[in-house]
Amino acid sequence: MDRRQMLQEASDFILQNDDFLLITHVQPDGDALGSTLGFAHLLQALGKRYAIAVEEPIPAKFRFLPMSDRIQLASQISRRFSKIVALDCGDIKRFGRCAEFLEPQADILNIDHHKTNDCFGRANLVDLEAAATSQIVFNLASFMGTEIGRDMSVCLYTGILTDTGGFRYGNTTVEVHTIAAELLRNGVSPYDVADRVLETLTWSQLQLIREGLKSLQKDELGKVAWMVVERDLLDRLGAGDEDAEGLVSYARNVQGVEVGILFREKADGTVKASLRSKYHVDVGEIALSLGGGGHARAAGCTLAGPVDKAVAEVLLKVRESLPS
Amino acid sequence: MDRRQMLQEASDFILQNDDFLLITHVQPDGDALGSTLGFAHLLQALGKRYAIAVEEPIPAKFRFLPMSDRIQLASQISRRFSKIVALDCGDIKRFGRCAEFLEPQADILNIDHHKTNDCFGRANLVDLEAAATSQIVFNLASFMGTEIGRDMSVCLYTGILTDTGGFRYGNTTVEVHTIAAELLRNGVSPYDVADRVLETLTWSQLQLIREGLKSLQKDELGKVAWMVVERDLLDRLGAGDEDAEGLVSYARNVQGVEVGILFREKADGTVKASLRSKYHVDVGEIALSLGGGGHARAAGCTLAGPVDKAVAEVLLKVRESLPS
Ligand SMILES: [Mn+2]
Ligand SMILES: [Mn+2]
Repeated sequence: MDRRQMLQEASDFILQNDDFLLITHVQPDGDALGSTLGFAHLLQALGKRYAIAVEEPIPAKFRFLPMSDRIQLASQISRRFSKIVALDCGDIKRFGRCAEFLEPQADILNIDHHKTNDCFGRANLVDLEAAATSQIVFNLASFMGTEIGRDMSVCLYTGILTDTGGFRYGNTTVEVHTIAAELLRNGVSPYDVADRVLETLTWSQLQLIREGLKSLQKDELGKVAWMVVERDLLDRLGAGDEDAEGLVSYARNVQGVEVGILFREKADGTVKASLRSKYHVDVGEIALSLGGGGHARAAGCTLAGPVDKAVAEVLLKVRESLPS
Repeated sequence: MDRRQMLQEASDFILQNDDFLLITHVQPDGDALGSTLGFAHLLQALGKRYAIAVEEPIPAKFRFLPMSDRIQLASQISRRFSKIVALDCGDIKRFGRCAEFLEPQADILNIDHHKTNDCFGRANLVDLEAAATSQIVFNLASFMGTEIGRDMSVCLYTGILTDTGGFRYGNTTVEVHTIAAELLRNGVSPYDVADRVLETLTWSQLQLIREGLKSLQKDELGKVAWMVVERDLLDRLGAGDEDAEGLVSYARNVQGVEVGILFREKADGTVKASLRSKYHVDVGEIALSLGGGGHARAAGCTLAGPVDKAVAEVLLKVRESLPS
């Protein structure tokens, strides 16, 4: 089905129904929340009724998103819905606890950009070329001729900004910048959004960067760099696993390095390895061979402890994959 | 003079002359080099002769810029020029040693976007609305109808990327994203450029982040954060002053902080304070009152040592400026 037909189907789904439940993936990121709230603004403009459910409270840094106060926790939802819109979810498992609020024969509109999307909806607006689900919502609103105001623009801009790593990843296309221009025209302050969602660091995150960098090492050839974050460090700093996530970029960004890795001890004693590569090594393949998964440039896997053993295991695989 | 007239004058200057010397400011950044090399591509396309002079070797991370091998060191230039194009220079003092290569009555085309530009040229293409001089060179090439190929696009994109802080600063406009879209259409790889000029960190920079973060402090209210980099740390790590520059963002980016400051001991015992603010405090005013200068959100000044005294002096001024 071509893009136009998918947009038409999504548009019909919206116009012919009312009383929607909007859901996105567990542990929602900027695009999950930006696309969901952007879509809520679209429904608002059309006078439709809807609820928005998430499993857990959203991260503090996203609470500036207009209408984020309309988001309800799963525990606050007391009924089931027959019309569902799923945003930024590759499959139904990503709904988490929110899956409980679907009626048995509920109709789902599936709006997403993940390569692995299995088209689980009755209607599917899946665009694998899109850098963000927020970009698809922008295209849908444009297709439907709905006005995209400042508040909706802030939500969609946030999703595009985060899923392109601030217009830095390879998914940043001509269309991405063209839409960004349009969203700024609608009143988005790029400084304000970037500051809130990309720049700001919590005190724990800063402590973690400092302590984490103490463990930064390179291999003899300078092609692989890695860091280790032990459990007691996280506990001592009162840092959550999400605070540690960004650390891997320090390993990846070392001049001359092709693969950067973060090893993080989990509460159950296993070790989470996050892998990033620059140009040549497919870390998705490496992660897959170790029971994990991901993309060519960003992937992860969980290994048995202790840390030293996990480090050795991953480094061996990575070295085999380096171009000679 | 309106924008169109300035573009016409610049175009005439180029078309009616030949054998230009291109110069930019000392300690050239991404926009200085991007706009200068972008302009060189324009002259190349028009079949004009030119030389490019800089005072010192350009930073390694910019050596991927197409035609950067055409840049000569001041020491390699053996004659004077009568037709000069100055790019990204607010005034003639910014030419540094390259001023020596101007004939006494040389004609200068001044292409720049600094608020302080004093229109020192015979022709002045000064656009204070532009986020980068590279953006002005793009507009000039478009005005002249010259084809903007991939190589020229890479140079101009680099300048726009660096001067907007990766599309994050307040100078990021609709026009900036519209031009970025056009440059990607011409073949720029945004991932490759961002990786080289924004992401990559040298080993010394990483050491400096780790050591610098040890000194990170907040005031009682959490509105001011600062770091101190002592001279012997820089010496010990073999780090240059330019390696330390980026550190101030860690102070500025602390959640809840309005003003971030980096204090850096210089070789002569004085202390360089770099100030950054988020929304309310005009750090340009503060720096000015301490004998320095800059913009409302980014400024700097140099104070007498020792460090502790300099820190106390600046913190006093900053606290007075905080909104109550
Ligand atoms: Mn997404
Ligand atoms: Mn500039």
